[in-house]
Amino acid sequence: MIKRLQLFVAAFAILAFSPLLASASDPSPLQDFYVAINDTKNGVFVNGKFCKDPKLANAEDFFYSGLNIPRNTSNPVGSTVIPVNVAQIPGLNTLGISLVRIDYAPYSGLNPPHTHPHAMDILVVLEGTLYVSFVTSNIDNRLITKVLNPGKVFVFPVGLIHFKFNIGNTKAVAFAGLSSQNPGVITIANAVFGSNPPINPDVLTKAFQLDKNIVTYLQSKFWWDNN
Amino acid sequence: MIKRLQLFVAAFAILAFSPLLASASDPSPLQDFYVAINDTKNGVFVNGKFCKDPKLANAEDFFYSGLNIPRNTSNPVGSTVIPVNVAQIPGLNTLGISLVRIDYAPYSGLNPPHTHPHAMDILVVLEGTLYVSFVTSNIDNRLITKVLNPGKVFVFPVGLIHFKFNIGNTKAVAFAGLSSQNPGVITIANAVFGSNPPINPDVLTKAFQLDKNIVTYLQSKFWWDNN
Amino acid sequence: MIKRLQLFVAAFAILAFSPLLASASDPSPLQDFYVAINDTKNGVFVNGKFCKDPKLANAEDFFYSGLNIPRNTSNPVGSTVIPVNVAQIPGLNTLGISLVRIDYAPYSGLNPPHTHPHAMDILVVLEGTLYVSFVTSNIDNRLITKVLNPGKVFVFPVGLIHFKFNIGNTKAVAFAGLSSQNPGVITIANAVFGSNPPINPDVLTKAFQLDKNIVTYLQSKFWWDNN
Amino acid sequence: MIKRLQLFVAAFAILAFSPLLASASDPSPLQDFYVAINDTKNGVFVNGKFCKDPKLANAEDFFYSGLNIPRNTSNPVGSTVIPVNVAQIPGLNTLGISLVRIDYAPYSGLNPPHTHPHAMDILVVLEGTLYVSFVTSNIDNRLITKVLNPGKVFVFPVGLIHFKFNIGNTKAVAFAGLSSQNPGVITIANAVFGSNPPINPDVLTKAFQLDKNIVTYLQSKFWWDNN
Amino acid sequence: MIKRLQLFVAAFAILAFSPLLASASDPSPLQDFYVAINDTKNGVFVNGKFCKDPKLANAEDFFYSGLNIPRNTSNPVGSTVIPVNVAQIPGLNTLGISLVRIDYAPYSGLNPPHTHPHAMDILVVLEGTLYVSFVTSNIDNRLITKVLNPGKVFVFPVGLIHFKFNIGNTKAVAFAGLSSQNPGVITIANAVFGSNPPINPDVLTKAFQLDKNIVTYLQSKFWWDNN
Amino acid sequence: MIKRLQLFVAAFAILAFSPLLASASDPSPLQDFYVAINDTKNGVFVNGKFCKDPKLANAEDFFYSGLNIPRNTSNPVGSTVIPVNVAQIPGLNTLGISLVRIDYAPYSGLNPPHTHPHAMDILVVLEGTLYVSFVTSNIDNRLITKVLNPGKVFVFPVGLIHFKFNIGNTKAVAFAGLSSQNPGVITIANAVFGSNPPINPDVLTKAFQLDKNIVTYLQSKFWWDNN
Repeated sequence: MIKRLQLFVAAFAILAFSPLLASASDPSPLQDFYVAINDTKNGVFVNGKFCKDPKLANAEDFFYSGLNIPRNTSNPVGSTVIPVNVAQIPGLNTLGISLVRIDYAPYSGLNPPHTHPHAMDILVVLEGTLYVSFVTSNIDNRLITKVLNPGKVFVFPVGLIHFKFNIGNTKAVAFAGLSSQNPGVITIANAVFGSNPPINPDVLTKAFQLDKNIVTYLQSKFWWDNN
Repeated sequence: MIKRLQLFVAAFAILAFSPLLASASDPSPLQDFYVAINDTKNGVFVNGKFCKDPKLANAEDFFYSGLNIPRNTSNPVGSTVIPVNVAQIPGLNTLGISLVRIDYAPYSGLNPPHTHPHAMDILVVLEGTLYVSFVTSNIDNRLITKVLNPGKVFVFPVGLIHFKFNIGNTKAVAFAGLSSQNPGVITIANAVFGSNPPINPDVLTKAFQLDKNIVTYLQSKFWWDNN
Repeated sequence: MIKRLQLFVAAFAILAFSPLLASASDPSPLQDFYVAINDTKNGVFVNGKFCKDPKLANAEDFFYSGLNIPRNTSNPVGSTVIPVNVAQIPGLNTLGISLVRIDYAPYSGLNPPHTHPHAMDILVVLEGTLYVSFVTSNIDNRLITKVLNPGKVFVFPVGLIHFKFNIGNTKAVAFAGLSSQNPGVITIANAVFGSNPPINPDVLTKAFQLDKNIVTYLQSKFWWDNN
Repeated sequence: MIKRLQLFVAAFAILAFSPLLASASDPSPLQDFYVAINDTKNGVFVNGKFCKDPKLANAEDFFYSGLNIPRNTSNPVGSTVIPVNVAQIPGLNTLGISLVRIDYAPYSGLNPPHTHPHAMDILVVLEGTLYVSFVTSNIDNRLITKVLNPGKVFVFPVGLIHFKFNIGNTKAVAFAGLSSQNPGVITIANAVFGSNPPINPDVLTKAFQLDKNIVTYLQSKFWWDNN
Repeated sequence: MIKRLQLFVAAFAILAFSPLLASASDPSPLQDFYVAINDTKNGVFVNGKFCKDPKLANAEDFFYSGLNIPRNTSNPVGSTVIPVNVAQIPGLNTLGISLVRIDYAPYSGLNPPHTHPHAMDILVVLEGTLYVSFVTSNIDNRLITKVLNPGKVFVFPVGLIHFKFNIGNTKAVAFAGLSSQNPGVITIANAVFGSNPPINPDVLTKAFQLDKNIVTYLQSKFWWDNN
Repeated sequence: MIKRLQLFVAAFAILAFSPLLASASDPSPLQDFYVAINDTKNGVFVNGKFCKDPKLANAEDFFYSGLNIPRNTSNPVGSTVIPVNVAQIPGLNTLGISLVRIDYAPYSGLNPPHTHPHAMDILVVLEGTLYVSFVTSNIDNRLITKVLNPGKVFVFPVGLIHFKFNIGNTKAVAFAGLSSQNPGVITIANAVFGSNPPINPDVLTKAFQLDKNIVTYLQSKFWWDNN
């Protein structure tokens, strides 16, 4: 009886953080695919996640529906990101690739400065006009920018801070490929001013050359995560 | 004169410790093979291209234009693939990702059975209706299939034979992300029946259980490469 | 009670697809070895498979017997492949290498066109005369061929379609090293014409430029897997 | 004259098969990007530097002197980092490891919030008292902190924003191991407010919830790089 | 009831060989960190070890205390190595780096000839004077040596036999970074003459050109492991 | 004259951004080390050799002849290794696999204790009777042994000390696959007692518990390399 409860709790725990867990791939997977499941009893572990018996895998394991649907962008940053990664498609487990759709509000919808610690990003614009940019690492910190219309493609190297800004007066839509089945995102402002608990304000005052009361004011604000 | 001597010395030096040099491989080579030579003049470099001084890189190096333009699909297979990889965007070098746009003719435009020896493929349909499929490896050779409308996403694991077929009566358009900056393609029919020179027909007669005159007839045909 | 049954079922399931599962290695294993077992209760997972406690590993875990025994080649393709990979030697788990022995019937024993999605192949002929070949990827599809007598060695790059054909009037025997502990095989004819369920014949008719009734005839045949 | 022709031929040859050449990436690139060119004279090599003939390597190639010398920390952030990587020790090329020494001024010497896009960081304190911290990625952005005295060790996972702050009234000294021979650094404030040219202030105003004149004031300041 | 006992046994078994198990990392981890635990009920497997729910990770998981404490070097080789790897810091799991502190007795404290099968080693001397060395592989077997005072740094490439010898008349202390969270050590003399059971003395007599009775005498001795 | 200037400019350019260039490593380097220099004339290339234009590759590039020829084993260790790696087959470059043939003299032909720093080893016996063995790493140093007759296969994990000894009264022949195109060998006795220049005898006296005059006697001997 106790046993059964423990299994239930374990299954629940795995379910609960499954997006974070999606997990470590190898450079060359050694079976055809590794379909992720949340069931500890019938699963096995390959390369990070429980896997289904490959003989039981079916088309639904490799499928996602809905990237054609425009998303609501009425939020503080004016953009919404729809990820299609191993959390949405279990068959992506270990495959090292994923997609996102990003909708931008007209006039200044912003995908704010962020990094992907595990992935490159290749963006194609479908609608609207985006001003996109990345900054190279120290000591140069060069800003590389481009204005993109529909059909234009731009590449953001791994780990560099980058953003995309709608400078048109219509909404914008873009798709991007990412070189990981679980790319991860660090939105700079959220991590710096919105961490939980807050960073010691003396550190931010010095690092960002801001008045301490501006720092504490920023730390009291709400930081929207557009993912 | 001095120059020539230096080249000779360099070539000799390389030759001299060539066994030690033979050298570091990658987990997944990105062209079919890299045959070693000792000749710096006519050789090229394994594992990446020559690079620009990073300080001279600019936005054009990460940019491509034209994925919004519909392509002509009047060809024997009724489909056209537009690659956006390191040949089009030099800044993709080493980044492990690329994109393609695929246009399909109405009624049976076909991206014929093929493999990508170095890349996974994640497809999103923008227009039309595609019937997509892959076959698992021996000994099961299970066929996994799905019909995709706009906004639907499907994943094709590395190295497996797969195809996409327009079963609608309108043209179809899809974008795909590939987990390599140089994915490579092997179209099965082209490699088997259209190789140069042709494969010994006795081999194909036995392997494909075909009459020998059908094999030689197939080998005399033209095999269209839709890439 | 139910619990115990579930464990039994799980153990059985793992056993059942253990060859497919053999599984993902890392480029640099981080303990001396990872011996595979099929026992979920006493095993742990490292890098793909359950592992034995390294202290319990013994010589049998690294051993296989019988590569000296000639195999029966009375089958439709006239060849038999004996794999020695992680399914036969559990200590190969994560080690990135395996062997095969291949016996060929006299006059046209054929190891039919196939790919290894995860492995390079280096062949050495022990007896007989083999005509061997691989085809490069698009758009060249060059055929590279060689006739091999005993003591001759030939290399087949990863992912390329290749075959080996006995052109002598005696049986032939070869050994090959493969750069994976679970190399995987896709026999082209089997995957294309023998998939389960069959591929839509319209796709194959168009892709292979064959009459539709030849396609359906081929799809009704039995496709032998020589592995 | 002949030489020049040869160069032209070589450049042409590279150009000619450039799509095939595009080529093998590493799992983790070690500079921001490697833009491909076809010009051997002004280019450099991806994935490693030119190497000495191994027979000519000597002890000096593996050696660095001076990590015992305290550094001047009279600068705006009150800290100085001394790297010992492949730029200082050529024999570290490809070896995937390096060291740094960091000196901190008494009372609030700060190694400001930064990321290493290609390396983990393991720190050991030799003198003084450091308050160290990292922030997890979205959507949690949890702050993990610790106070470290001499002999204490702390680990910073790859790509996460982290800092080290001297909260003691004496100077502090730490050593750190980094899992790359060329770890790279992105100091957040420098990349965001000190990029060259500056980021569009509308982007930063929105992303950081700051008044636009504070943003432009910050962008006019000098951002010290303590590396 | 039986079930519970089995779980206990499994947990114990994992605990027992946990240092060996620490285990296989990927070149690019795909979540922020993977904290190791020894609890099969609440843990999951990522990339080698059971992992904690990332939301439960805390600062202690990334922390180690005590590298400032001098160690006793009264042992047959006159040196003691204090490892700080995944066995000491569970948060190092998959991160590909670790540290050691090494204390050497005055006059000839020796870290005897050994290899790290999975790691590079970068050494910095804090006190004393070390004579350090490595030997290149066949067929040259060149000896590369250096004398190191405080602040000097030296690099030992992966897999090569190397040693460090205190040639000063005071004790010596060094720190080293290693490019693995579980580097592994093979002390040559211990593996060759102190294996369990002993190697056939005829093999060692021939391989080392020693009298057989010297071999059997050496095999009867005690071989100290300074780790 | 122009040529010389160009070379100077190129060398300068490389020098100028050398810290950024330091660059991408592989997970497993395939020579002992790759010391960086800034001199294109005398340098060689990390991570692979110069390559032929793939269009010029032919069957000879993938071919080797002669593994059927018995080798002379009249040498101090009574064995001879014939490597078939990238030095013999240039097309093996980057492919991560190679072969060897080993001939053993009757009665005690020995492939003496050695390690492969970059490769696993899978051995199949063709003739004779071999006693084979490897030793696990510290702290257990367990000896794993097996007697092998024709058709028997045994696996040696990467980096571990291993040997093969002919205990039969006939010659023995074995083939082995190695998981690298340039496996490298360190014969323990040769590296320890036959290095050039010799290791300080005090180190070996202490490490191997031998009389110093035995050490200096061993260091004066000739150490045969059977490769």
